[in-house]
Amino acid sequence: MLPYLAEFLGTMMLIMLGDGVCANVNLSKSGMKGGGTVQITMAWAAAVMIPAFIFGAASGASFNPALTIALAADGSFAWNMVPGYIVAQIAGGFVGAWIVWLTFKKQFDAEEDAATILGVFSTGPSIPSTGWNIVSEAVATFVLVFAIKGMAQVGGMNGLQGNVAVYVIILACGMSFGGTTGYAMNPARDLGPRLAHACLPIKNKGTSNFAYGLVVPIFGPIIGALLAVGLYAIIPWA
Amino acid sequence: MLPYLAEFLGTMMLIMLGDGVCANVNLSKSGMKGGGTVQITMAWAAAVMIPAFIFGAASGASFNPALTIALAADGSFAWNMVPGYIVAQIAGGFVGAWIVWLTFKKQFDAEEDAATILGVFSTGPSIPSTGWNIVSEAVATFVLVFAIKGMAQVGGMNGLQGNVAVYVIILACGMSFGGTTGYAMNPARDLGPRLAHACLPIKNKGTSNFAYGLVVPIFGPIIGALLAVGLYAIIPWA
Amino acid sequence: MLPYLAEFLGTMMLIMLGDGVCANVNLSKSGMKGGGTVQITMAWAAAVMIPAFIFGAASGASFNPALTIALAADGSFAWNMVPGYIVAQIAGGFVGAWIVWLTFKKQFDAEEDAATILGVFSTGPSIPSTGWNIVSEAVATFVLVFAIKGMAQVGGMNGLQGNVAVYVIILACGMSFGGTTGYAMNPARDLGPRLAHACLPIKNKGTSNFAYGLVVPIFGPIIGALLAVGLYAIIPWA
Amino acid sequence: MLPYLAEFLGTMMLIMLGDGVCANVNLSKSGMKGGGTVQITMAWAAAVMIPAFIFGAASGASFNPALTIALAADGSFAWNMVPGYIVAQIAGGFVGAWIVWLTFKKQFDAEEDAATILGVFSTGPSIPSTGWNIVSEAVATFVLVFAIKGMAQVGGMNGLQGNVAVYVIILACGMSFGGTTGYAMNPARDLGPRLAHACLPIKNKGTSNFAYGLVVPIFGPIIGALLAVGLYAIIPWA
Repeated sequence: MLPYLAEFLGTMMLIMLGDGVCANVNLSKSGMKGGGTVQITMAWAAAVMIPAFIFGAASGASFNPALTIALAADGSFAWNMVPGYIVAQIAGGFVGAWIVWLTFKKQFDAEEDAATILGVFSTGPSIPSTGWNIVSEAVATFVLVFAIKGMAQVGGMNGLQGNVAVYVIILACGMSFGGTTGYAMNPARDLGPRLAHACLPIKNKGTSNFAYGLVVPIFGPIIGALLAVGLYAIIPWA
Repeated sequence: MLPYLAEFLGTMMLIMLGDGVCANVNLSKSGMKGGGTVQITMAWAAAVMIPAFIFGAASGASFNPALTIALAADGSFAWNMVPGYIVAQIAGGFVGAWIVWLTFKKQFDAEEDAATILGVFSTGPSIPSTGWNIVSEAVATFVLVFAIKGMAQVGGMNGLQGNVAVYVIILACGMSFGGTTGYAMNPARDLGPRLAHACLPIKNKGTSNFAYGLVVPIFGPIIGALLAVGLYAIIPWA
Repeated sequence: MLPYLAEFLGTMMLIMLGDGVCANVNLSKSGMKGGGTVQITMAWAAAVMIPAFIFGAASGASFNPALTIALAADGSFAWNMVPGYIVAQIAGGFVGAWIVWLTFKKQFDAEEDAATILGVFSTGPSIPSTGWNIVSEAVATFVLVFAIKGMAQVGGMNGLQGNVAVYVIILACGMSFGGTTGYAMNPARDLGPRLAHACLPIKNKGTSNFAYGLVVPIFGPIIGALLAVGLYAIIPWA
Repeated sequence: MLPYLAEFLGTMMLIMLGDGVCANVNLSKSGMKGGGTVQITMAWAAAVMIPAFIFGAASGASFNPALTIALAADGSFAWNMVPGYIVAQIAGGFVGAWIVWLTFKKQFDAEEDAATILGVFSTGPSIPSTGWNIVSEAVATFVLVFAIKGMAQVGGMNGLQGNVAVYVIILACGMSFGGTTGYAMNPARDLGPRLAHACLPIKNKGTSNFAYGLVVPIFGPIIGALLAVGLYAIIPWA
């Protein structure tokens, strides 16, 4: 029971902080409007690190269906737990997005731009192109997952050190690749909040753009994660 | 005696650095005017971390009545020390704000905007709404306190590692939620400096806005902190 | 076999993340256009740190011919492995740059400024002057290599700590010296991607400027690295 | 012999990186012109941390006459080594500033604003006022030195952890107080480079402003450092 609960709560916190920073720097009436991409990428890194240290012992702190699937493909996670993890992750993202909406309720009420509203919840491409957008998501997720696997090469890590590495990995992926598709790298991070966007009574919201959301931020991350564990597996490490 | 003194000095340093950065980037004649929200949130994170590592052994480094009350409710802090801690924390915030005023004396003398002056000392909402502002403060403080409690799930932390986690937690709360109400998350952080604002002979200062300050940054954080320890307590961690 | 493969893959990741951030903040149609030099320097620091912790045990994580040569001159690396390392590093940079091009394919297609395109791949001076540009590269690389050597003076480092030091070193070199020549500090970091630029079918690309690239970012770093190991060797440390 | 050499080299590196970032973001023709105060304060933090981990074992890594004097007053450093340390620190700052000039030679040649040139080397007030400027420097240095002393309260620090604390302390002092007087907090950091400014053949340089430099950045830091060790000494820690 605990691992699924931990994935649910961890992904909820991930989205509270992650969609939180998107609201915080992008909504027109937020006091931190204009914080920019350094703030966004630093906060997302913390948004992963914080639930990772809280829930790491309980569930492994995946919070990400692409990572969960890749770790199962890789033999380091049980396939029979995968469906439950994915449901918990998407549900956590959904609830986390609702909490962000409540936290920024007055700022959402005052927001007039539909694209800004959707951008708080979910990712989107700077230049739409299904194929190339999938490539961008796959490359970013490849780096993410390969680096997470590669943490095993560091001997003698104690306490918080693995979590600090996670912070730097997420920071780097966002800072280096975020301008292509908004670096979902995680189907639950995109789909959970997108479902919330579809449900929430936000005045000036537009389409939830599932045509994009059911394709690029799902298949791109899964492809990249599988490539990463595949490459990691064939390297003759020792 | 030492724990109360440590809470007083620690909260004083917290406000020296925390209100310091607000003066530093917001006062018109400061040489770092315009540093922006990345600077504000990074400095506030350090403003908590530094006294936390200095005074952690002496007092537990709460510096925050909402956290102190929640830890007492939670059974991890003695109720009979709560009143003394809260007095020490508010007094520390009050003295810290005086020192910030002395440090930026010439810049305060040259400042003509009353809202900017108050904003150095205390928090305020980007869109006033007592109910929703309390929600925003409660959510931010919930994340703060839940993450602090959650540090106990990381095994084998040594030396500075807990303090590094605190840095990341405060950074994240500010970067992700600061644009709603200025992220007090701490009644002493707001009330101590607000009392100093009321007392100090600053030329162009306006109202100290106790109508806001005695409500939102006191009850929001306490509600959020209690929710956090409550949720933490019911999770079947082991 | 593994050390050469590790140098190849590590330098590939270095350039994926490093040239990635240059694309991400500089290409006109990137969603993170305008992220600025804080983002660039933080991401480059992570771009070195991440492959360093993954491949440190396998190859020593040099990823840099100037460092490899200096460590050989210094007696801490075998001369007979130097040529293979350098080939692997340049090849890694070449492949990494191709992947960046694929990741930002649509943004490259839309980019009209040839200097911006070359700037994603390779370094260049803010004021051209072969002699002084070499000085600038030598000074930055001196600090880099002296600090890497100096990590040996810290007793009792465990786990990720050396990698955190590397992060701070790269961050500092970029933040303090990057505005002179773009802080190559590494012949492979510049030459690998420059060769990729020469080969890639990018519409509006201009010259690959090998007149600069075969001189400054090769000889400057090597001179600086040799000075650093030389100074380090003559200090009577104990 | 080694401690004095270490203080010389460490302060030289401190100024190479510290004055380096000032050149890098402020000189008109630098490629990183406009990097802003986040870059300045992050780089200065690294500028202290890096020589601190290299030379900490050799000399204690003071690099700062105010800190050296305060530690002697405090009984934790030998008075008879103080004069040699101070000479080494000022000499290190002097040589470091020369190296920055060489590194940015072409950018200095192209710079037309005398205040920008002096600002690369030394500190200055945003609003001149000898008394209040001394207060500002004293407060910033008080926090610096009190926090350095306070690191002793953290049990079980290993390896790089003390250096990470130093990074955060310097970052905080700069981010929170830098806009008053440029946060010298260190007589050698200001005087060494100011002497270099007076000597160097820079075309458009103006006055070296010793009237300010021989007063505020010398007496302010010493007063603040003495107050810090005094307060630290009277706290009944255990």
